[in-house]
Amino acid sequence: MNKTAVVLLSGGLDSATTLAIARDQGFSCFAMSFQYGQRHTVELKAARHTAQSLGVVEHRFVDIDLGSLGGSALTDFSVDVPKDRTEITSGPIPVTYVPARNTIFLSYALAWAEVLGAFDIFIGVNATDYSGYPDCRDEFITAFETMANLATAAGVEGRGKFRIHTPILTMSKSEIIKTGIRLGVDYSLTHSCYDPDSQNRACGRCDSCRLRKKGFAEAGIPDPTVYQL
Amino acid sequence: MNKTAVVLLSGGLDSATTLAIARDQGFSCFAMSFQYGQRHTVELKAARHTAQSLGVVEHRFVDIDLGSLGGSALTDFSVDVPKDRTEITSGPIPVTYVPARNTIFLSYALAWAEVLGAFDIFIGVNATDYSGYPDCRDEFITAFETMANLATAAGVEGRGKFRIHTPILTMSKSEIIKTGIRLGVDYSLTHSCYDPDSQNRACGRCDSCRLRKKGFAEAGIPDPTVYQL
Repeated sequence: MNKTAVVLLSGGLDSATTLAIARDQGFSCFAMSFQYGQRHTVELKAARHTAQSLGVVEHRFVDIDLGSLGGSALTDFSVDVPKDRTEITSGPIPVTYVPARNTIFLSYALAWAEVLGAFDIFIGVNATDYSGYPDCRDEFITAFETMANLATAAGVEGRGKFRIHTPILTMSKSEIIKTGIRLGVDYSLTHSCYDPDSQNRACGRCDSCRLRKKGFAEAGIPDPTVYQL
Repeated sequence: MNKTAVVLLSGGLDSATTLAIARDQGFSCFAMSFQYGQRHTVELKAARHTAQSLGVVEHRFVDIDLGSLGGSALTDFSVDVPKDRTEITSGPIPVTYVPARNTIFLSYALAWAEVLGAFDIFIGVNATDYSGYPDCRDEFITAFETMANLATAAGVEGRGKFRIHTPILTMSKSEIIKTGIRLGVDYSLTHSCYDPDSQNRACGRCDSCRLRKKGFAEAGIPDPTVYQL
């Protein structure tokens, strides 16, 4: 069995846990991160430190040009990141949604997997508290997997079957944190905030910060995040 | 009806014809081209001149980093482009296949379409003489379309349904050329060769050149290409 996997690594809590799970399942992991015109590059530093801490065969950073397309509070400075939303999981898809982001990420992971001769791709999407992003749902992942096996020489020639692994898809944030702690994730290296200050301290008020805080509280584990407040 | 479309434009004969067809169907066209570590940038110049000649609302060039992933004669200088193959459409998938290329291209087109509020994407894939690329087949396109409608806020919220248009999918090269001539495509602006010389003259011997030559001959239309031979 080919035990090589490409793991998408954002620098956040979810993808760090996903990498730890892939390693625990016996995969040799090739981590892939993206620089895409987001407001802050602290995420990429977190990704690098997380990859080093958990151990990967190779960590590749890909420059992509999502910022110039606009359409999201995470890539367009003229759109404010929402704060202090009490009902994070309800309502319409928020302005922090980046059009087709996970589709683009998974497409690059697929290309790299094919070059490596790997058939396993891990992504830390989460449907429980996903803030309403369409590309964090199981239906999307399944459709991508079907497409991937038709898109590639490796898939079409039957050398193997691509699988998109989503090990934390249905976990709550506290379950994710408890799993990661068990597998040795150092969450002080990870970064979740959509809108950190100039010293890279988390705002504590965006959707991502609120979900993270709540997760540590519910897991009964001290939150190592440095907040502005 | 929303008559805005994103059209993928490589600078080659097929995508130029696809753009002309999209315009003829009444779409306002937004052209998208990619710089991806290919051996030559003459393609991008061809794309720019073709877009100007046919008329587009906007033409965007996206830098992508496929070259660093390797795995193809088109992005890896250590792999030779095959020449003088007599049976272009038979046999295994050739070394000019770029892993997951059309998946990545369509993912960016999807992102831009969603930002523009468009639901129509045109791509000039061709299954008749496609040299064996898996991501030029109808099954792949259909799977991508299904995935696209699950991946996006616009699709999930029911604002519209994404459609991937492949107007030249089942045309022969000569049919493509005759269609383009009827719609005003200037093929002297387009470029097909995988391996041009330093003066950007076509080699005349790679799969792409051979298919192009044969197409003009069968269409009974003078080939405007400047060949080395």
